[in-house]
Amino acid sequence: MKKLINKPEDVVRESLLGMAAAHEGLMKVHFDPHFVVRADAPLQGKVGIISGGGSGHEPMHAGFVGRGMLDAACPGDIFTSPTPDQMEAASKAVNGGAGVLHIVKNYTGDVMNFDMAAEICQAEGIDVEAVIVDDDVAVKDSLYTTGRRGVGTTVLMEKICGAAAERGDSLAKVAGYAKACREAGRSMGMALTSCTVPSVGRPTFELGVDEIEVGIGIHGEPGRERMKMKSAREIVAAMAEAVIEDLPFQRGDQSIVMVNGMGGSPLIELYILFNELAEIARNRGITIARTLVGNYITSLEMQGFSITMMKADEDMLALWDAPVLTAGLRWGA
Amino acid sequence: MKKLINKPEDVVRESLLGMAAAHEGLMKVHFDPHFVVRADAPLQGKVGIISGGGSGHEPMHAGFVGRGMLDAACPGDIFTSPTPDQMEAASKAVNGGAGVLHIVKNYTGDVMNFDMAAEICQAEGIDVEAVIVDDDVAVKDSLYTTGRRGVGTTVLMEKICGAAAERGDSLAKVAGYAKACREAGRSMGMALTSCTVPSVGRPTFELGVDEIEVGIGIHGEPGRERMKMKSAREIVAAMAEAVIEDLPFQRGDQSIVMVNGMGGSPLIELYILFNELAEIARNRGITIARTLVGNYITSLEMQGFSITMMKADEDMLALWDAPVLTAGLRWGA
Repeated sequence: MKKLINKPEDVVRESLLGMAAAHEGLMKVHFDPHFVVRADAPLQGKVGIISGGGSGHEPMHAGFVGRGMLDAACPGDIFTSPTPDQMEAASKAVNGGAGVLHIVKNYTGDVMNFDMAAEICQAEGIDVEAVIVDDDVAVKDSLYTTGRRGVGTTVLMEKICGAAAERGDSLAKVAGYAKACREAGRSMGMALTSCTVPSVGRPTFELGVDEIEVGIGIHGEPGRERMKMKSAREIVAAMAEAVIEDLPFQRGDQSIVMVNGMGGSPLIELYILFNELAEIARNRGITIARTLVGNYITSLEMQGFSITMMKADEDMLALWDAPVLTAGLRWGA
Repeated sequence: MKKLINKPEDVVRESLLGMAAAHEGLMKVHFDPHFVVRADAPLQGKVGIISGGGSGHEPMHAGFVGRGMLDAACPGDIFTSPTPDQMEAASKAVNGGAGVLHIVKNYTGDVMNFDMAAEICQAEGIDVEAVIVDDDVAVKDSLYTTGRRGVGTTVLMEKICGAAAERGDSLAKVAGYAKACREAGRSMGMALTSCTVPSVGRPTFELGVDEIEVGIGIHGEPGRERMKMKSAREIVAAMAEAVIEDLPFQRGDQSIVMVNGMGGSPLIELYILFNELAEIARNRGITIARTLVGNYITSLEMQGFSITMMKADEDMLALWDAPVLTAGLRWGA
């Protein structure tokens, strides 16, 4: 295993220290329990938004902590759910009296632990709403998941809800946007290569030199189909079809589209993939109103990508366009 | 070779189409000769800034075209210099009467072709200044290079000069900032893995499963030393020492620091590396005033990273902080 790390057991801690040092003034990191929080938290009267999940998907989630997005993030070990005490501490740290929204990706451990944390917080008088993201159209039920897995829509939801909270929307309203994002977003991923969890030291799965896995999960969970390598055009066509037909997206729809790298794929390839997706959208009469192309929800050094499409009305586009100041997403600030 | 592409010969063209589609309103792409230009170019009375080089280093350079940074970029084939006709066409497209600055990385083909383009433009009455970046401390003379190679300082130079041009500085003044960046910036890179040029179809070089190459070039040119895998701490210490001693950076200096991924290294590792570098800077009394951590000047899917440090006074920091609106770097806009 060749990795740019010190000891496997120090990966999460040291990367969080590095992130806090690189983005001083923007975020603070707490240890035992681990969480990353906006430097100016808690904001009185503002709904707090927290998310979390296993590490290894950076910039998600800690990279989305900051003005106009998350108030705090709870990073677990690599590909491992954070624990309720992290979520409890983070919720308390961001509670400004207007309640806290938990954005939870649909993995059994995450859902269970966020649920426990919400109960504890509520018992202590903090108003908590939780919304579960389950946007991956690839498979129903999976390793670690009952029902669909939560993937790329999480990024879009965190941005949109973050903007709503920033302008002063109530917890009910911010949670309403989260539910709207959940209803409107669909994703699917694929991999050219596996990835290696540092503490394990060997690839999570094996793929032949001419094989790809379509419908892969962000922890390397099996997808829909293992197949021989295909062209970018064929791969995007198959994935876009699955995503578009699932909602379904229809002629005249406006959308926010993310072509997301899994961590090891170069940007030049992501733009080739976006070019294919843009042509499919054009042919189907779906407007791509806003875009993200890059590494936003990754799987360590995995080569591959995912597509996320979210149907968005003018209200959601305005929230998308609102200023955001985080390590991973920044504009207007 | 597993790559998310269609045909190898279409990689550059299709990725440029994808980039233009993803960032509509920000840039336009021209073909034959290929160049990417700000959507609002030329701006009357503003110094135009162009750069260029082989493709495969994305987001550099096309991803830095936009307000507050480059006016145009000339992408060559993968790891191949663009041609003088591209640079000539780009220079004409951005010429608003105040002259054009060429930012050139020190590779034999790039220097020769930018030189020819500058001559042609000058003969046609366009005022052109060229500044060559040669910041890589790893080796003197290299494959494709007489003297030091140009690497990460290019990104910082493009941002700082772009801000100066945007506020209306003269060509002499903008070129002066470019020269100041050249004097003040130093870099060094390393690789865990090779990369594969699509039209070649096999890795550029071979590295053993436990080997790394320290001092690697962005096209996979040999570095200082091939060695057994080491810890992040040891690798950063060696590279930082080389960079810091070369300028030399001294106690009390302020700096802009980039920890740059080569394309295939996950962000979680880049933050571990930044954490090491921040500690070294602290111990040496060098202030890290601004940071970039991510993929900015890449080598396709190569795993590895580079460090760039640039000594910066308040004037340069103010230019760094000025708004920038490009695909690859965006803040304040």
